[in-house]
Amino acid sequence: MEVAQVFHMNKGAGETSYAKNSSVQSKIISIAAPVTEEAIIQVLITNWPESMGIADLGCSSGPNALSVISEIIDVIYSKCCHLGRPPPELRISLNDLYSNDFNDIFVSLPAFYNKKKENMGTGGLGACFISGVPGSFYGRLFPSKSLHFVHSSSSLHWLSQVPPRLDSKASVAINKGKVYISKSSPQSVLDSYSQQFHKDFSVFLKSRSEEVVLGGRIVLSLMGRSSMDPTTEESCHHWELLAHALMSMVSEGLIPEEKVDTFNAPYYAPCAEEVRLEIQKEGSFIMDRQEAFEIDWDGGVDVCNTIETISSGQRVAKTIRAVVESMLESHFGREIMDDLFRRYAKMVDNHLSKTRTKYINLVVSFIRVDKIEG
Amino acid sequence: MEVAQVFHMNKGAGETSYAKNSSVQSKIISIAAPVTEEAIIQVLITNWPESMGIADLGCSSGPNALSVISEIIDVIYSKCCHLGRPPPELRISLNDLYSNDFNDIFVSLPAFYNKKKENMGTGGLGACFISGVPGSFYGRLFPSKSLHFVHSSSSLHWLSQVPPRLDSKASVAINKGKVYISKSSPQSVLDSYSQQFHKDFSVFLKSRSEEVVLGGRIVLSLMGRSSMDPTTEESCHHWELLAHALMSMVSEGLIPEEKVDTFNAPYYAPCAEEVRLEIQKEGSFIMDRQEAFEIDWDGGVDVCNTIETISSGQRVAKTIRAVVESMLESHFGREIMDDLFRRYAKMVDNHLSKTRTKYINLVVSFIRVDKIEG
Repeated sequence: MEVAQVFHMNKGAGETSYAKNSSVQSKIISIAAPVTEEAIIQVLITNWPESMGIADLGCSSGPNALSVISEIIDVIYSKCCHLGRPPPELRISLNDLYSNDFNDIFVSLPAFYNKKKENMGTGGLGACFISGVPGSFYGRLFPSKSLHFVHSSSSLHWLSQVPPRLDSKASVAINKGKVYISKSSPQSVLDSYSQQFHKDFSVFLKSRSEEVVLGGRIVLSLMGRSSMDPTTEESCHHWELLAHALMSMVSEGLIPEEKVDTFNAPYYAPCAEEVRLEIQKEGSFIMDRQEAFEIDWDGGVDVCNTIETISSGQRVAKTIRAVVESMLESHFGREIMDDLFRRYAKMVDNHLSKTRTKYINLVVSFIRVDKIEG
Repeated sequence: MEVAQVFHMNKGAGETSYAKNSSVQSKIISIAAPVTEEAIIQVLITNWPESMGIADLGCSSGPNALSVISEIIDVIYSKCCHLGRPPPELRISLNDLYSNDFNDIFVSLPAFYNKKKENMGTGGLGACFISGVPGSFYGRLFPSKSLHFVHSSSSLHWLSQVPPRLDSKASVAINKGKVYISKSSPQSVLDSYSQQFHKDFSVFLKSRSEEVVLGGRIVLSLMGRSSMDPTTEESCHHWELLAHALMSMVSEGLIPEEKVDTFNAPYYAPCAEEVRLEIQKEGSFIMDRQEAFEIDWDGGVDVCNTIETISSGQRVAKTIRAVVESMLESHFGREIMDDLFRRYAKMVDNHLSKTRTKYINLVVSFIRVDKIEG
């Protein structure tokens, strides 16, 4: 599977779209907002650039796609207004993979600009240029020293590729019946995933180090884990249940077993230590803040305040489906998706009735400095 | 009609798509290529920028969308290779209106990059960053002094709006039974169109003057006319026939007459003099080259070398439909489109059997200079 070309959030605005099923990611953006705001203000007041380059990596589509840059614009304008300084020209880049639904984002821009102009009052919205930059953030995306602030939410846990030993083309299936790290996976599976993450994250840092100016900052939030052990429930049980759902279809003859054996997700939930060490090793950035939050699998929807009558399991299944369906479809075919996610929803409901497993979300904020040769 | 939000080339790759019906625009790009190449080389060798900003305005979608930048990249790399200099970092922006099919362009980028890398041989493709910039070029699109070369083909004859006196909301219909300037149009119609063009083109020049560096260049090719008279066949007969097709449907009770009376195209084919005068008046640019070409309505397809069995009229109708359908649909409704363009094809065949009317395409190349206060 060519991840950079296949992978995208579900398009459109239908029942299974990412636009309709991205409240968990929205919640993660909100929780990380204070860290984002602090970083953007620090970039602003320590650099006062005339023209400020800002990028949101893995912006996706739907309501979340413009929410981060909306917040960033508001913070900058409000700070400049407070200090009586003219706001910088803003060069804002929205990045995602080639098959992301950029059309969805772009048609919503006229309304976005109008709303911002209204909110800004008499001052108006100053020079603010929004562009779409398609491509993988595991490689160069932007001109040298063109960015002051880089943000990425719910994206860096996606690897550039399935680790080679776990890829569908690998000669031996070493993670049979599973789709990610599992308690029963051999050590070689754990090692392959961890190696791929380190390789990818170091390329990410190297690429950004060339694009971000000295004093520029990066804020990332991504799925992670709180312990060194990558087989804990918090970091892999949502994949474990997906493997169960697939295997239940295998047992009924709906999918060949070999199909499950040869699928593994290009995903890795690192622990804070792994992220920190890789940043130290690369040497172009120093860590400013690092935090971890727990997130409910269904985003912690307040059932009393919603007219929705669907179960937690169904909500979780819709959230996961909106994200991973493009990859599953390319491997298993479109026809099994409805059945698969019905089974998955039931298994999630059953699991959550016994244990309220949560995701761990890491938020890291770091600063571009003169390279520390290690 | 909000032109900036409604107007787009027909999406997808179907029978009526722009991707399948844009050979006239492709031919125009080819004819203007020597002017484009000369301008880009002049920018390169007189500036030698480390990082070079390039924009294609009104890039559309389909095969033409990447053809201009492909040519530009080749010219730059070949010149640098010839002179033994490292190529500059290329910042390439593809612009079109908000509802343009950017997804279509972006999914074709991996193959585009791969092909370029292959063609470049051992030197490889250097730093080359392609982004999508949605919005109207009748206004600012890019950061200050960020561009070295701007190109636009088959786009500047589209106005930012229908001239206000001719808009569907105008209290009196002054161009009854017509959709553009016609021999029978009153002088007020001619004046309204000409005023809108001058207003729009001056905003275009003012916007670009802030974005283009001194010594930077702009090459535009657009539909025009060879005489001062805006009612000549070459500049308006393709609209005249569209009005005839619509009126034939009115006479059969298929469209209310009032619908035709209140539709006018946001289009203007200027003469070379009008373009030159506006550039002089704005004062930030000096003219380098100006040329005019004749183009067959059907792109001059060599019938002997094509397996197509459709008539010239059908080819012209498909070409026009792929461009204007979004606007006609928003005013007249989708249901009449097939019928309308069948009628149109017949009328074009009938016309071309008597007179081989051609389009006039203007190509202008101009240079950003210190503002000449006029």
